[in-house]
Amino acid sequence: MAGGFRNKIRQKNAENSGFGSNASGRFINKGGLPNVQRRGVNVFNRLSWYHTMLNLSSFRFISYLVIAYILINIVFAMVYYLIGVEHLTGIDKSDPLNEFIDVFFFSSQTFTTVGYGRIAPVGFMASLVATFEAFLGLLTFAIATGLFYGRFSRPRAYLRFSDIAVVAPFQGGSALMFRLAPYKNNALTDADVIVSAAIEVIENGVPKSNFYRLETQLNKINTLALNWTVVHRIDENSPFYGFSEDDFKSTDIELIVQVRAFDEVFSNTVVQRSSYITSEIVYGARFVPMYYPDKENLSTILDLDKINEYQKEDLLR
Amino acid sequence: MAGGFRNKIRQKNAENSGFGSNASGRFINKGGLPNVQRRGVNVFNRLSWYHTMLNLSSFRFISYLVIAYILINIVFAMVYYLIGVEHLTGIDKSDPLNEFIDVFFFSSQTFTTVGYGRIAPVGFMASLVATFEAFLGLLTFAIATGLFYGRFSRPRAYLRFSDIAVVAPFQGGSALMFRLAPYKNNALTDADVIVSAAIEVIENGVPKSNFYRLETQLNKINTLALNWTVVHRIDENSPFYGFSEDDFKSTDIELIVQVRAFDEVFSNTVVQRSSYITSEIVYGARFVPMYYPDKENLSTILDLDKINEYQKEDLLR
Amino acid sequence: MAGGFRNKIRQKNAENSGFGSNASGRFINKGGLPNVQRRGVNVFNRLSWYHTMLNLSSFRFISYLVIAYILINIVFAMVYYLIGVEHLTGIDKSDPLNEFIDVFFFSSQTFTTVGYGRIAPVGFMASLVATFEAFLGLLTFAIATGLFYGRFSRPRAYLRFSDIAVVAPFQGGSALMFRLAPYKNNALTDADVIVSAAIEVIENGVPKSNFYRLETQLNKINTLALNWTVVHRIDENSPFYGFSEDDFKSTDIELIVQVRAFDEVFSNTVVQRSSYITSEIVYGARFVPMYYPDKENLSTILDLDKINEYQKEDLLR
Amino acid sequence: MAGGFRNKIRQKNAENSGFGSNASGRFINKGGLPNVQRRGVNVFNRLSWYHTMLNLSSFRFISYLVIAYILINIVFAMVYYLIGVEHLTGIDKSDPLNEFIDVFFFSSQTFTTVGYGRIAPVGFMASLVATFEAFLGLLTFAIATGLFYGRFSRPRAYLRFSDIAVVAPFQGGSALMFRLAPYKNNALTDADVIVSAAIEVIENGVPKSNFYRLETQLNKINTLALNWTVVHRIDENSPFYGFSEDDFKSTDIELIVQVRAFDEVFSNTVVQRSSYITSEIVYGARFVPMYYPDKENLSTILDLDKINEYQKEDLLR
Repeated sequence: MAGGFRNKIRQKNAENSGFGSNASGRFINKGGLPNVQRRGVNVFNRLSWYHTMLNLSSFRFISYLVIAYILINIVFAMVYYLIGVEHLTGIDKSDPLNEFIDVFFFSSQTFTTVGYGRIAPVGFMASLVATFEAFLGLLTFAIATGLFYGRFSRPRAYLRFSDIAVVAPFQGGSALMFRLAPYKNNALTDADVIVSAAIEVIENGVPKSNFYRLETQLNKINTLALNWTVVHRIDENSPFYGFSEDDFKSTDIELIVQVRAFDEVFSNTVVQRSSYITSEIVYGARFVPMYYPDKENLSTILDLDKINEYQKEDLLR
Repeated sequence: MAGGFRNKIRQKNAENSGFGSNASGRFINKGGLPNVQRRGVNVFNRLSWYHTMLNLSSFRFISYLVIAYILINIVFAMVYYLIGVEHLTGIDKSDPLNEFIDVFFFSSQTFTTVGYGRIAPVGFMASLVATFEAFLGLLTFAIATGLFYGRFSRPRAYLRFSDIAVVAPFQGGSALMFRLAPYKNNALTDADVIVSAAIEVIENGVPKSNFYRLETQLNKINTLALNWTVVHRIDENSPFYGFSEDDFKSTDIELIVQVRAFDEVFSNTVVQRSSYITSEIVYGARFVPMYYPDKENLSTILDLDKINEYQKEDLLR
Repeated sequence: MAGGFRNKIRQKNAENSGFGSNASGRFINKGGLPNVQRRGVNVFNRLSWYHTMLNLSSFRFISYLVIAYILINIVFAMVYYLIGVEHLTGIDKSDPLNEFIDVFFFSSQTFTTVGYGRIAPVGFMASLVATFEAFLGLLTFAIATGLFYGRFSRPRAYLRFSDIAVVAPFQGGSALMFRLAPYKNNALTDADVIVSAAIEVIENGVPKSNFYRLETQLNKINTLALNWTVVHRIDENSPFYGFSEDDFKSTDIELIVQVRAFDEVFSNTVVQRSSYITSEIVYGARFVPMYYPDKENLSTILDLDKINEYQKEDLLR
Repeated sequence: MAGGFRNKIRQKNAENSGFGSNASGRFINKGGLPNVQRRGVNVFNRLSWYHTMLNLSSFRFISYLVIAYILINIVFAMVYYLIGVEHLTGIDKSDPLNEFIDVFFFSSQTFTTVGYGRIAPVGFMASLVATFEAFLGLLTFAIATGLFYGRFSRPRAYLRFSDIAVVAPFQGGSALMFRLAPYKNNALTDADVIVSAAIEVIENGVPKSNFYRLETQLNKINTLALNWTVVHRIDENSPFYGFSEDDFKSTDIELIVQVRAFDEVFSNTVVQRSSYITSEIVYGARFVPMYYPDKENLSTILDLDKINEYQKEDLLR
């Protein structure tokens, strides 16, 4: 860390970050969630299983459903088997394996309420278990319906952030910039951005994080249809005022970004966060434009693959 | 474009439109969505299929469901056919076509979990496939339930905008006006409107769009039950100050309108947007009133068919 | 109407009511919806059927579902009957009526996907129709699921307004008061109220409504757990300043009330509106308290039946 | 109650608490709901059954579903039994009990639409009842689907409050403090807190509650990932200014706390409330830190079990 640069920071430490000055590591993960581990209570109370199910990838979510379906049927098959296959009509009794296979299929036909009736319960116990299995099946699919709906109706911003931030020449001075663009066919309006910086300093030999709010040239835009390059001018009010290239590379910096917008399709406010740490800040570079008119000049094309493209540029300052 | 009119515009260019000055074509489509095409990434990542399903017309949505249902059953019918019809009871084995037809119906009876049992699986493989088909069927209808709910519970403003805006005489001067009215039995309150204008100018031979925020006489109303005529007075603070009829006709103008209101039935904020381009602005006209008391003077009648009715009127200025 | 009282009104006419000055009759119905009839377009476009289904009483909603269920089954029964009962197994063919009854029950067993199989399709056409009926049945119940959820999850304020407003003595002068109380086990916080008045005046022999915003002593409260008496002090800033008892009785007045609160169970903002017209304003009366401590002094009891109780009281002014 | 302390309170009584000064007992229960009982109307109108179902514990909710399922089937079994078991095929007619058991299982197979068909209706009346039972079954599961979704999608803050508040030394004086922490994997941002105090005083021999808004050092934080210690400095603007330890112990005090935050997963504002009464305030104590860096210094660990840990500390003042 460049010695003495701490004196250059004039802005008041912002105390409302929610992170204490002795919290450690990255504060916000690249994905936007806080880098905090919870201990205590017990694990079931610490997890909101609904939040968990909503955050699973589609593949894992479907896999969990399939596995649960198979396990439930195996359990019920065992119950029916223990009750006795004589309480079910239509079972293939040629050997125990075939018996088990048939009670397994009976279970699945009950759980899904398909109930062909080729295998059907006749005795009291088997009928009773089947009564509850069908009930359980319907409730399970009721929950699955809710989870599917919860998953795909969950309002999300669908923003892509540039992987890197740059320190670029800007209006005779320099500015810290990153950009973001909506990548899906949602319609975002009234977007605003809040940018904070956590800068680690050594005080009496102990590392300590200070938090600063960064001013941006434009913190509200009406229609978020093209990319948005967020610009923090490095002037006297910036905590980075006077930072050299070396300062930027040797200091533990974390930019914390929060974008909030109104999704017109869902009529809901959506929020997305990201962060940039020291290694994700490129000094002396400028982003390449990522949108251009189409051939007939009738609409605008936004090329999402260019979001990380930049060219090196000298910073005089 | 009328030469020199650019000098008449005194208002500062608003930078927070979200559209760059070199974006091209109409910015906001008549329907309210931005006129932007996205490239890059891949098409699956660029589409939110849920947003897509929500925006489909009812006819296309139902058609897609029916087609999906038929295709799924054909696929499963082929699987059962390949496994062998001898693993299903009750199949009409008179000829291969009848066999296929029967496995198709067996598939549909499994997928919908109707499971009459006239045709039923007996072998291991057929039973196994049927086990998964019934499961898939239930999940599919779980998703369909969510989509139906998502489609009809989606909060929408249900506003009808006049197809044209007019430049009308107003309080000794002139004003740009358009109107809007709620056309459904929703209850909108606390409505506000934001109007911007994009005006194309030629700078150094290159066309460039400037954005202006337009002041309106009233930008908030309590109850949006009747029609609302939005009035932008063309005075010194208007970018259209001093525009002649010719200026209005020869300049590329786009009015971008956003109305926001609170729907009391859904308890949700709803937003609707529209835009007016040069060809949709009528110079020298006045809207005809579209509401009147009923015969008994007990309530007010709003005639939605009159929303576009106007009469020509001279503008002195 | 008392002549000359118009001169007493000093407050500026509020133009943002959303009702024109020549709209007629009550503006807001007692239930809170605007008293406006829509014409034009066609009736299907004028109705949001989802809003309609949400506003139906429970009894009518269930009745519509049952009727739809019976009608759909009759239609499908006729189709199966026309295809021919020989395409269904297990039909009681003793006479045409019994045949029709059995195809009706087959239809219901297919539509609900119960599919006992005692009656089952064997021919191509009957199977095909059954295939689509089961599909339609599942989609219908998908829609019903959404409607049920939409109906009971719809955020509502559940406020009871007093049927009457009173003009009561207040701090040496007088005030217009009405009260409201939450009557269900929801938890409302951060409530605010907006009160407007529409007063009809005769201008040049033509009746005309003027709108005024009424100031209230307290327009925000933290916890809406007990009743809330909304107080509009009649001082120089009130449009009712100087109104005599006769003025209150002979003038067409409408108080329009909008209460907004945050429901903590639904985490949603809820709004409820009501209105008071001339005949619902009692001059010279005071509301009787409607809450009191319980016997053990451990909690507070709110007696909802007292919401309209008042006692006559002389107004000096 | 310490005599004369009332004179020490300089702050103006806040009137917008929503509780009258003669309401009694605790105002807000520890769980956050107002301590008010409603009377009048009738009990069905006073209860929102949906709010009630949402607030049930999972165990009771499931129990109610199971009990309802059994009761419904018993009722339908009785109906089928009265109609006569000869209208159902496949019934075990060995004795009346077996008959009843079989109609009970037939009912459950109809209600869940599993419909094996081993027992199936043949007569008109039994078929008709079955037609409606299957319909009722589907609607019931439609409602259950909605309730499950309503229960688990209900936005909640999942905050744990410290059981006690402390009066701790702070910046040369003292401060009232309590703390709270998110205990689940939700992501809360933009949190704010509102703290009020209800203090009971004796006026003319009658107890009366006064309400005060308490200022806090920080009432907004950006990311609520770690614990948040809310600090109300006891200075001249505090109603507790000059309170001795004895005053704190002998006066009826209630701190009412409301935390509001934005849940990024649900994209919804969530609110949670709690309260502290006299016996829950510890005078002369300081909270022990509850988060610390992990071993590799890569993230922060929040230990929820420490939320109530404090150490006694002398207060000079």
